Amino acid sequence: METTILKGKGVADKLNLVTREMIDNENLSPCLVVILIGDDPASEYYVSNIVKQGKKSGIEVRLQKYEMMDQPSLVDIIMQLNQDDSVSGIMLQKPLPKDIDEDFINNLICPDKDVDGFNPMNAGKLYLEQDCFIPCTAESVLEIIRHYQIETESKHIVVIGRSNIVGKPVANLFLHKSSTGNATVTICHSKTKDISNYTRQADILVAAVGKANLIKKEMIKEGCIIIDAGINEIKDESGKNIYVGDIDYQDCLPKCQAITPVPGGVGSVTTSILLSHVARSAKKMKKNK
Amino acid sequence: METTILKGKGVADKLNLVTREMIDNENLSPCLVVILIGDDPASEYYVSNIVKQGKKSGIEVRLQKYEMMDQPSLVDIIMQLNQDDSVSGIMLQKPLPKDIDEDFINNLICPDKDVDGFNPMNAGKLYLEQDCFIPCTAESVLEIIRHYQIETESKHIVVIGRSNIVGKPVANLFLHKSSTGNATVTICHSKTKDISNYTRQADILVAAVGKANLIKKEMIKEGCIIIDAGINEIKDESGKNIYVGDIDYQDCLPKCQAITPVPGGVGSVTTSILLSHVARSAKKMKKNK
Repeated sequence: METTILKGKGVADKLNLVTREMIDNENLSPCLVVILIGDDPASEYYVSNIVKQGKKSGIEVRLQKYEMMDQPSLVDIIMQLNQDDSVSGIMLQKPLPKDIDEDFINNLICPDKDVDGFNPMNAGKLYLEQDCFIPCTAESVLEIIRHYQIETESKHIVVIGRSNIVGKPVANLFLHKSSTGNATVTICHSKTKDISNYTRQADILVAAVGKANLIKKEMIKEGCIIIDAGINEIKDESGKNIYVGDIDYQDCLPKCQAITPVPGGVGSVTTSILLSHVARSAKKMKKNK
Repeated sequence: METTILKGKGVADKLNLVTREMIDNENLSPCLVVILIGDDPASEYYVSNIVKQGKKSGIEVRLQKYEMMDQPSLVDIIMQLNQDDSVSGIMLQKPLPKDIDEDFINNLICPDKDVDGFNPMNAGKLYLEQDCFIPCTAESVLEIIRHYQIETESKHIVVIGRSNIVGKPVANLFLHKSSTGNATVTICHSKTKDISNYTRQADILVAAVGKANLIKKEMIKEGCIIIDAGINEIKDESGKNIYVGDIDYQDCLPKCQAITPVPGGVGSVTTSILLSHVARSAKKMKKNK
């Protein structure tokens, strides 16, 4: 049987359509403020995509770019944006300068505008199965599962990685009493001994660890489903920079039932999730006016 | 080798001592308000223990007892207690009347006074590894692990149960980068197929599912450590009401390395944890005055 390639584009297109329709039907004027500090090229590229996609979806993306920033100034900016009724969402592009306390800043962003889902209020609601903003990469994983109608109930899902933005939220979402939940979940990470012992048991394997081509075919079960949320820049044989996931795609492809490509999988859904959050926030703000 | 019995009393005594010392040294006047609605005998018994232990620790426990309660009145009471500077902690004894929305009320309690750790802000901080109030039963499990110096790093910990007050917080705590964390964690629950397959792999097994004597010796690994957070009322052979855990204690005892008894294990630590939270809250409130 041929392996199904779980491409992200169709998932993103559908999300964008829903977002666009919501904005038009409800006559919303959503605005996302993106704060970008420094000159990391990967960040600039990612943000430029948000601006472009925002335009298509009818969302104003206001890019606030700074060469440098200290914590008190950033606090002032966040507090101002929290108060500003024209702002539906605030996104703080990472990495932040080293002397800025990331937790402190995340905790300051008003939960209603925290479209990245990094504030503890949103993290807590995710965990307690209440309505909230879910971190975009984690929600992208779930959206792919939903789109391709992958059954999760009673399945053994193994998540590799325990980051606050992918591993932990994904693991918690799979425990929800929902159509993408009710799974038995194992979380592995850098301190896990004999990781193959766990990955070989997975009906669904989710990798979000940031190690290029970590998972080989010997480490997976025949017929499993693989969702690769990793994205790692490496050099190919000719010395060219390329992006690969945490899964050795070519190696695992013949053995699994379905797999997300990298790039073109999870990563191509995240911007659409983010923008859908901005539209939802605008809708809620309008209703509460 | 003889099985170690992980009794709760020594753990509780030590916690009570630390709490008492903190209150005396810092000259605190901690006050816990317990709201008790209806006449559930188990709840009354539990609460009377808190009052008694509070006295010993130097914590005023103000019991507010009501025959009945509707949601708007409860909201008023919570809002008043949130504002009241003499109140360091608010505890809402469960179960609540059926027509009261538990999530809604938990979300109202000021996170700084939410000594039960049920507010999303505390849940989110737990999950993000920030300082917070941890639900008392979950913290009791961790406190036992800490007290008996049980190694968790790189161990496979299987948690049975996905409740917001025990299973999920415990599982997340074991993932922390802490001395009681860094474990590989599997979470099982009612939708798990073939639960033995997982429990037999556990180096440490934590049961918090509320099913009397669910786990038998065939389901555990030789030499594992068992923490039983379940407490179930059943009738013994003579028809007398007794309390047992989720683990069949007598059956599993010879096969495991260490085990918590029920009663006398996890349950006998929770009140001490709760009171330590009240003292911590009083200290913080005094500092912020």
